[in-house]
Formats: sequence, C-alpha cells, structure tokens
Amino acid sequence: MIRMRRVLLAIAALPFLITGHASAHMVAKPVSWTFEDARYGSVLVYDDATDARRPGLLMVPAWFGVNENAIRKAEGIAGQRYVILLTDMYGATIRPKDTAGARDAVSPLLADRPMMRRRIAFALARFRALASQAPIDTARLAAIGYCFGGAAVLDLARSGADIAAVVAFHGNLSTDDPTLAHAIRAHVLAMNGADDTTTSPQFDGFLAEMRGSPAPWQFLALGHAVHCFTEKEATAPTGLCRYDARADAWSSMMMRAWLDASFPAQ
Amino acid sequence: MIRMRRVLLAIAALPFLITGHASAHMVAKPVSWTFEDARYGSVLVYDDATDARRPGLLMVPAWFGVNENAIRKAEGIAGQRYVILLTDMYGATIRPKDTAGARDAVSPLLADRPMMRRRIAFALARFRALASQAPIDTARLAAIGYCFGGAAVLDLARSGADIAAVVAFHGNLSTDDPTLAHAIRAHVLAMNGADDTTTSPQFDGFLAEMRGSPAPWQFLALGHAVHCFTEKEATAPTGLCRYDARADAWSSMMMRAWLDASFPAQ
Repeated sequence: MIRMRRVLLAIAALPFLITGHASAHMVAKPVSWTFEDARYGSVLVYDDATDARRPGLLMVPAWFGVNENAIRKAEGIAGQRYVILLTDMYGATIRPKDTAGARDAVSPLLADRPMMRRRIAFALARFRALASQAPIDTARLAAIGYCFGGAAVLDLARSGADIAAVVAFHGNLSTDDPTLAHAIRAHVLAMNGADDTTTSPQFDGFLAEMRGSPAPWQFLALGHAVHCFTEKEATAPTGLCRYDARADAWSSMMMRAWLDASFPAQ
Repeated sequence: MIRMRRVLLAIAALPFLITGHASAHMVAKPVSWTFEDARYGSVLVYDDATDARRPGLLMVPAWFGVNENAIRKAEGIAGQRYVILLTDMYGATIRPKDTAGARDAVSPLLADRPMMRRRIAFALARFRALASQAPIDTARLAAIGYCFGGAAVLDLARSGADIAAVVAFHGNLSTDDPTLAHAIRAHVLAMNGADDTTTSPQFDGFLAEMRGSPAPWQFLALGHAVHCFTEKEATAPTGLCRYDARADAWSSMMMRAWLDASFPAQ
C-alpha cells in the first residue's frame, strides 16, 4: 500500500511526463455471473503493471455492498500483493444507498444462511475460474470480509471451503449452526473492536464455536475500537460505527501476517 | 533469534578458530537487591557483542521462577534486540522444584496483590538504575510475563507504571481491583490459549476490566493452545500445560510488533 501510494503520488506530481501506461496500473474490472436466477455484479481488482501470479482474496464488503468506497478499499489492499474479487452478495440490482437499504439487503441472507453459503461458494468457484484472465495463484486463495461480509466469509469457512485462510474484520460472528465449525479447513482470524456493541455479545459464542474447528484460528479483541474500524468513510466522531486508524493499521498488518503464515510455501 | 542461532552454530563449528571473544556473547549476570527485608536474585541477560543501547524488558517467568530454563528463554528473546531483567518475584531463597513448591511460592503474592505491585515496581526501579552498567535504552522499557508472571506484569501496568508496554503470555488475568485499569499507561497485549482452562474463565472479566484502560490494549485468543504454550519444557503430549510451537512463534512475532508500535520513535 505504501508502494501504491508512492506510485500514485508520483503520477499526480508528473502528469505530463507519463506517456505510456504508468508503472502501476490498478484494474477494477466488472465481473458478472448468474446464480439461481439472479445476476451478480462483482469487481476484479488488481495491479496489472506486473503479471506475476499472486494470492487471490475473495473480499466481501460491509453491508453497503459493492460501491466506490469498497472498490477504493480493495485497491488499497490489493497493491501488487493480491488479486481481489470484490464480491457482490446481493445481486446486481441491489445497491443500498442508506442504512435502511443496507439492512434490507442483508436481512434475507442473515435469515437464510444456507443460501448465503451457496452464493459465496459459487463466487469462490467463479474466482478460481478467473485465473485464466487475471494473475491469480489459485494455490493461494483466501477470503476477507467486513461487518456483514465477515459473516459471509466465516460462512465460507464453515462450509468447508478449500481455501488457505479467512480473515473477518469487525465481522458479524453469528452462526446458524455451531457444529459447522468441525468442517472448517481455512485458517480463521477474526478481529473485532472490544467496544463494538454490535458484535461483542457474540464473542463468547464465537470462541465456543471455534474451539470445534480442526484448523488454526485466532480471535483478536482490539481495545477502544468500535464497529467499522477499517471503514475510512465512517467519520462520525462518536457512535457505534467509527473508523480507527490504529486498529485499521494493526488489523491490516495482522491480516498480511496471517495470510503469509497460512498460504502454502512456494 | 535466528541471528543468535546462526552465530552459536558458527561457534560450535569453529571452536579452534575463535581466539578472542565471539561476535555474539550472551551475558547472564546475577543482579540482587534487598526489598522489605528480603533479598532478591534476578538475572540481567543481554548480548554484549555490541554496546548499542536497546529496549529493556523486565521479564517475569512462569511460576517456577528464575531458573536455567527461564534464563535460556530470556537469552532467546533478548538476542541483540533487547536487554532483559529476568526478575525474581519470590526472594532468593525460594526456588521451586515442583508444582507444589511453585504453588507455595505464588500463593502469597496472588493473595496480596498490593505486595506484588510493590515488589515489581521496585524491580522496575532497579532495572532503570542498571542502565549505568548495561546498554539499556531507558526511554524504551516494557515488561513481559508468563503464566503467573503475566499477572505480575499486568499488575505493573495496573499500578500506572511509566513504561511503554506490557505483554502477557498465557497470563493469569485476574485482578484484585478492576478500577486500577483506569491508571494504566502501558500498552497492554495479552495472549492466551483459547483452550487454556486455567485462564479462559478470566477472559470476559479481563475484557471488561481493560475497557477501562485509557491506553491502547489488545487481547488475543489463540486457537488450540492451552496453558504454557511458550514453555518448551512443557512436553507432556496432553494436559493443561503444553508447549505449542505455532502459538509460541506467533505470539513472539506479536510481541515484537506490539513493542515496536509502543516504543517512542527514535
């Protein structure tokens, strides 16, 4: 991300000197598919300045879904390090504009977790197939999710998906079936704000559930952080949902270390 | 530690070529003091192949106290990165040989937490003073502790000690007074095995207590790990107290990152 920022600064400073394409070029390519009669509109995000194969991250955004903020965030995470599939969980016609809309979008999925698992499993299969058109190393796949997206990627782990790791940021930790943990193969890292009143009532249940996972897992409670600590646009100085630069930076470092430790050696 | 190991291997391989002192030389120097009528026998551990000032870690070992295992562990942590004061909390005449002895040693301290805080505060003052004879950067001090030692260093934080950070490994998270958290200035990181039946009943209380700390803090639950996950000599394949190479390596990485993030910039 530092490298990206440096390159972007260079581009901003020298607009007239750039004649060909820049030394870094972030692609945000729409990718759509149809599943169970609905069309889904996801976005493939990566830097095509290099064609070196790199780990693939299936990324499920917070409940506002696939939008410009989420694409910018995916670009920041991707850098030249990852290829990201920013995954639409709602269907392409559903793009929440406010929290009421977001609540309407997630409710059917939280009420029908098997449906959520089918959707995200299908997205993962599509992501694998995209290796023919993007530099994805399909031996190094993981999933990351935020808030609602945390529940989605944890459900991907619970469905026994054959991916290296799942990382949930301020994720909804609920499950419809704690026994699914026995099927987990992905290395699960969940990171939640200790002051997140939305998810902290789920901490104990999550630990109890995860004790059933045969795979490595960790849970990190970040002091002082509330919900949304990675969401730069959550700018209200008080409230249940608020960006926290320290927690964002630390959890980002943790994610990279967890992925590095979870991916097979090359 | 890798560098240390490499140097030690080199020393082992080339015993006849070494004429002066080696390029790494680990010092384990007895340091004693008297406090409230008892004498304490601690050990100052650092590599004197370089005299560069480095962060100081007050280290409180697990309940077997200052012994050869604890010194070897302190040497591994110190490398050329830290100066460590391996701190005697019992008094020099008390060196437990078995778990019954260890229980006898810790019981008075766990029963009289103000006494524990006085002892460790005195040890910290002595550590600062040792900067005249060892390459300690007193602007970068922290405390680390294991099992019982976790309680000791957390109590140092709770007493409002002016140090940058405290890291507790499979620590006893209990407190005699949750309101002391308001006085904490050190950045606290506690890491416990999720399957540690000794300390897991304390997780909720610890989170509740630490929400009162004004300083940054984090709590990490490590899946599958039980008590003693950093203690290489805890070799019983089953049981309440068992070494875990994965949890040891990860928690060691976390400690270094937490200390780096907590020490003032140089």
